[in-house]
Amino acid sequence: MNYFGNRFRVTTFGESHGVAIGCIIDGVPAGLEVNESYIQAALDRRKPGQNSYMTSRKEGDKVEILSGVFEGVSTGAPIALIIYNENQKSNDYENIKDIFRPAHADFTYFKKYGIRDFRGGGRSSARETALRVAAGAVAEKLLNIVNVKVQSGICSIGKIDGKDFDFEFAKTSEIFALDKSMEEKQKELILQVKNEHDSIGGVVLVEVLNVPIGLGEPLYEKLDAKLAEALMGINGVKAVEIGDGANASKLKGSENNDEMTKNGFLSNHSGGILGGISSGQNLKIKIHFKPTPSIFKEQKTIDKNGDDVTFSLKGRHDPCIAIRGNVVVHAMVNLVLADMLILNMSSKLENIKKVYM
Amino acid sequence: MNYFGNRFRVTTFGESHGVAIGCIIDGVPAGLEVNESYIQAALDRRKPGQNSYMTSRKEGDKVEILSGVFEGVSTGAPIALIIYNENQKSNDYENIKDIFRPAHADFTYFKKYGIRDFRGGGRSSARETALRVAAGAVAEKLLNIVNVKVQSGICSIGKIDGKDFDFEFAKTSEIFALDKSMEEKQKELILQVKNEHDSIGGVVLVEVLNVPIGLGEPLYEKLDAKLAEALMGINGVKAVEIGDGANASKLKGSENNDEMTKNGFLSNHSGGILGGISSGQNLKIKIHFKPTPSIFKEQKTIDKNGDDVTFSLKGRHDPCIAIRGNVVVHAMVNLVLADMLILNMSSKLENIKKVYM
Amino acid sequence: MNYFGNRFRVTTFGESHGVAIGCIIDGVPAGLEVNESYIQAALDRRKPGQNSYMTSRKEGDKVEILSGVFEGVSTGAPIALIIYNENQKSNDYENIKDIFRPAHADFTYFKKYGIRDFRGGGRSSARETALRVAAGAVAEKLLNIVNVKVQSGICSIGKIDGKDFDFEFAKTSEIFALDKSMEEKQKELILQVKNEHDSIGGVVLVEVLNVPIGLGEPLYEKLDAKLAEALMGINGVKAVEIGDGANASKLKGSENNDEMTKNGFLSNHSGGILGGISSGQNLKIKIHFKPTPSIFKEQKTIDKNGDDVTFSLKGRHDPCIAIRGNVVVHAMVNLVLADMLILNMSSKLENIKKVYM
Amino acid sequence: MNYFGNRFRVTTFGESHGVAIGCIIDGVPAGLEVNESYIQAALDRRKPGQNSYMTSRKEGDKVEILSGVFEGVSTGAPIALIIYNENQKSNDYENIKDIFRPAHADFTYFKKYGIRDFRGGGRSSARETALRVAAGAVAEKLLNIVNVKVQSGICSIGKIDGKDFDFEFAKTSEIFALDKSMEEKQKELILQVKNEHDSIGGVVLVEVLNVPIGLGEPLYEKLDAKLAEALMGINGVKAVEIGDGANASKLKGSENNDEMTKNGFLSNHSGGILGGISSGQNLKIKIHFKPTPSIFKEQKTIDKNGDDVTFSLKGRHDPCIAIRGNVVVHAMVNLVLADMLILNMSSKLENIKKVYM
Repeated sequence: MNYFGNRFRVTTFGESHGVAIGCIIDGVPAGLEVNESYIQAALDRRKPGQNSYMTSRKEGDKVEILSGVFEGVSTGAPIALIIYNENQKSNDYENIKDIFRPAHADFTYFKKYGIRDFRGGGRSSARETALRVAAGAVAEKLLNIVNVKVQSGICSIGKIDGKDFDFEFAKTSEIFALDKSMEEKQKELILQVKNEHDSIGGVVLVEVLNVPIGLGEPLYEKLDAKLAEALMGINGVKAVEIGDGANASKLKGSENNDEMTKNGFLSNHSGGILGGISSGQNLKIKIHFKPTPSIFKEQKTIDKNGDDVTFSLKGRHDPCIAIRGNVVVHAMVNLVLADMLILNMSSKLENIKKVYM
Repeated sequence: MNYFGNRFRVTTFGESHGVAIGCIIDGVPAGLEVNESYIQAALDRRKPGQNSYMTSRKEGDKVEILSGVFEGVSTGAPIALIIYNENQKSNDYENIKDIFRPAHADFTYFKKYGIRDFRGGGRSSARETALRVAAGAVAEKLLNIVNVKVQSGICSIGKIDGKDFDFEFAKTSEIFALDKSMEEKQKELILQVKNEHDSIGGVVLVEVLNVPIGLGEPLYEKLDAKLAEALMGINGVKAVEIGDGANASKLKGSENNDEMTKNGFLSNHSGGILGGISSGQNLKIKIHFKPTPSIFKEQKTIDKNGDDVTFSLKGRHDPCIAIRGNVVVHAMVNLVLADMLILNMSSKLENIKKVYM
Repeated sequence: MNYFGNRFRVTTFGESHGVAIGCIIDGVPAGLEVNESYIQAALDRRKPGQNSYMTSRKEGDKVEILSGVFEGVSTGAPIALIIYNENQKSNDYENIKDIFRPAHADFTYFKKYGIRDFRGGGRSSARETALRVAAGAVAEKLLNIVNVKVQSGICSIGKIDGKDFDFEFAKTSEIFALDKSMEEKQKELILQVKNEHDSIGGVVLVEVLNVPIGLGEPLYEKLDAKLAEALMGINGVKAVEIGDGANASKLKGSENNDEMTKNGFLSNHSGGILGGISSGQNLKIKIHFKPTPSIFKEQKTIDKNGDDVTFSLKGRHDPCIAIRGNVVVHAMVNLVLADMLILNMSSKLENIKKVYM
Repeated sequence: MNYFGNRFRVTTFGESHGVAIGCIIDGVPAGLEVNESYIQAALDRRKPGQNSYMTSRKEGDKVEILSGVFEGVSTGAPIALIIYNENQKSNDYENIKDIFRPAHADFTYFKKYGIRDFRGGGRSSARETALRVAAGAVAEKLLNIVNVKVQSGICSIGKIDGKDFDFEFAKTSEIFALDKSMEEKQKELILQVKNEHDSIGGVVLVEVLNVPIGLGEPLYEKLDAKLAEALMGINGVKAVEIGDGANASKLKGSENNDEMTKNGFLSNHSGGILGGISSGQNLKIKIHFKPTPSIFKEQKTIDKNGDDVTFSLKGRHDPCIAIRGNVVVHAMVNLVLADMLILNMSSKLENIKKVYM
């Protein structure tokens, strides 16, 4: 199904080369400031064609609010956003009309639905992630009311890992690099694979500050489980780690446990989540993106009839999807947290009284 | 909330030291063979106290079917399972009654709900995972009808990684080890940390054979996203990888793309999922468990009043939760796939006709 | 599926003649007083065999809390309730083993699921409504915190309509009659049809006092729509009316509109709901029950092979299901309102601030 | 929340005087013929301004498909529909800007959300029902594949009841009258109340032919419960009856039970539903609409400050909302049945095999 979230819920529609893409954001509390300006600003961070580390493809991505906002604030009615597709021509895709691009969803969509919408990946295109970013901006505005602050950036490109992370620097970096000292090398690697007509993977790091204690609805809407779902569902993501993540499996309990004192936790191996509930420490999440599947090297595949084909992809594509993926990650974390913030409201009888008495 | 799954749905209840734990399995198609015998067999694989690599705590875990089954087959009514807790005494927990055990959910549950149910972790105890295993056994019976086969085992304990994986061997190993040649070393490490009053992390590997093409409901019930949610939600899991997982982020597209020929895929970096939909290749998933938080070394923490406390845990605990976690992982994968199998039924008009015409 | 409610959610299991029936109540805010005593009291109001206007069948219906409650209050964990079936013998049903009782669900369950669980209606038996009553008692405890008061009773039996309604009197009446002056005639009618080996329909009236303004989540979780769903889903209910109900269709706007002044509404044709949202006026709902389908007169039907059969039902049955249905109606209204109370918490940004700041 | 349906799901957005209204239809099986032409035809049946029995307000209501359809058939991706509001001017509403119209949702929306979107009722306007009609047309196309046929019409206007119902005649009647012999009187009544600056209630009757046995998911997605929810949620509906409905409460079991023979049922008091599951008989449902709340007579109300106001409404309004409501009822029944058709697919193991083996 095409919605995400329980009480703060986004339902999206649209294909890469259809008339438009859009979404309905449901469950936004009435009275929140909502306007096209800050949503557009978020979209602009994801926009392709901004520099040589991204696809040179241009997408206007001009968002319009269709409903749910009156005099600049949310009314409690569903908020619909629409982005018209400027370039609906699917000429670029004539040459792949009948073949399945390796590592893309062409094959599985065709088998599942029995339909081949070849135009730029159709529904499976990462173009849909623009809507996550747009909806995430509204979620972020809600989070800001209670001071929650999500920050993110690139920690690795291929095998070039950052060490010292500066989220403020990442905002200014063309590739959202977190480690200033590694940025140049990471950029070089991107350009190198681009020249090789190839692509490269990367890793995004998220940190969330000022998370209220108590977010997460165990046992089956745990905060970490919902984050994992939200992030693994992003195009190209192949692994999600919380706190020490995979490395925790190598440690002893005495090394991994976060001891506490009256002044707070002495470490943060857990990544700010205990038993699926936020502990008040900063959330720490790592998201691993595979390399862009669209490469220009010659590849083997099959066509709709199941016959062998050798082909070379044309068009313009990101050499590293992790970079723009960083903006999508940021948005999905916003969406999960906004939902959890609302869900947690009824955890205690005390809160019911606060609202009604 | 306390349910998992959309149309094949499990809702669980019960705490570590309450009267009983149990679950309601809803959405099981009528006509499936269901009996206590095979559910009990699955539970027995998870049962503690079987060897020195597990906690010596004994849990009878005798399951009883309360409803939904008539003359050995499911009736379409919800199937309720119950396991009475034999040992409801919470004496063992008197000494931690007022303190928050590090790396446990004591602190966050107390803050979220304002209640301190100190008896063995209450709802947050891994005891609840017995129900996942029980429900997973019913899901597996359904999967078997269409020949889907889930297999799993331990690939790493701490830093001792297996290389050659044999799922048949794992079934016979006391620690579910996948690599026969590493089993002894892995066992030794477990005993060593146990002797040190410490614990150790581990990694579970899952492979699923004969997955029908088309499972997964994009864009927000993608197969990989739902697996990530299901697995990250298991107690102690800190990272989930699909296919090449984290390693994919280090690769180039030309290395990571799975090319196809008329004889099938030439590799399986994707782990059997493309665009959130099963491709017909084997699923490959890695799940990283942190070390058991319950260790017997002295640790610092705070009590309910926020004051500093130094304490040493008593009782019996698994030195490595990944081992019994392996059985829970297996079950959760079953649950996700059974749900996806049902959800996918309406993907094509053709299927509607098959059922109704 | 077998759950009701969104955030205050009840999932039930069990058949008429299975081992046990039970339910899981999820979403109860932590800190609410929950005990078997008040749940049992609610169940006792529904209990059969109390007087000659009900079935003489005895059901112990002893409820036990299995989880979710610690030291007398809810912990935020799911609350499981169980009622063991004392009489699991299905001998009484041997004679209907292969036939479909008219106006019962025997035929449709068999066709839908392909299974004939003949024991007392199996899952479709009204026995399951005991669980609604039990869960409704917990919901009512929550509603009482904010002073919401649900009251109900019988307004009509067959064609004998009450006029003057006294909800306090109904509590003391063996048939929950609302109109003291008609109670005797209504009782007589029940005994008369009983002597004729027949049954009779009836109507329940509900009034809810002190409803907070704002309950109901338009457009598709409107308060009236959710009440209609909840009530039409009760065994034997064939019509639901809100406010003036069917009669509103005969009126002019000038007769039906509820005008307002600064002292409040001048009338209550709407039944306390405008646009699917509670207006602060009393809720008024009418629920029409068909006559008990189980009658002792000779009837025509078919057997599992589709052959004609003439038969006479044996056993003990309510001559008028509306009477015990009154208790179930009361419970379902409680469940809807408790859910709506929680859902409405996030309607305004102001409430988010109340909880988190 | 703003969605309806479980697997065949419609999420709507938009206000009476916003930029646009629209919806996302999710869960449409791939391969279904979908085009603007038949959706527009359904919308045209609801369109105002067609004759003197409706509001003279003109709404173009030109629908556009934005996604989910490729080369004339559904692709399995969500189908988005949009209708731009031609007349966004809210001048007409200047005079009611600060007051709450009696029997409208103005008061409750303001109290719930703290916002006064005065423009024509905002989200609570019946304008949103155009989307139900549009989505219902797609659902109907799916139902037609398995020969299900929904038909509906007006049986009563005020106290003028039809007796002999002809669904074919209703299609040709300007007021969708089912009884040709009463049509003239019903029309006269409408014109009379219109001249009196008043309005009148009415009743819609639905009959569904060729319903497969087995639709409805007990115990909490019963077919009758879901129909009641769907229909009670339509603007202005105050009562829903299934089969004999309210009248069943006056009958004896021997009168109300539908006996069966090998040639089928001998009567249809149940309205085609037993135990919440379709029996294969025709569905029969009655829906009671209150009179249009918008009347031109002088009325008392209060303003935003709570002060008394006497006012007369201006503008153009339907004298009887049941007439256009008939089209909305038809659509909602389509939506419920399409959803139930999909949900029922997994009722039996046999169906799983049909799809996968």
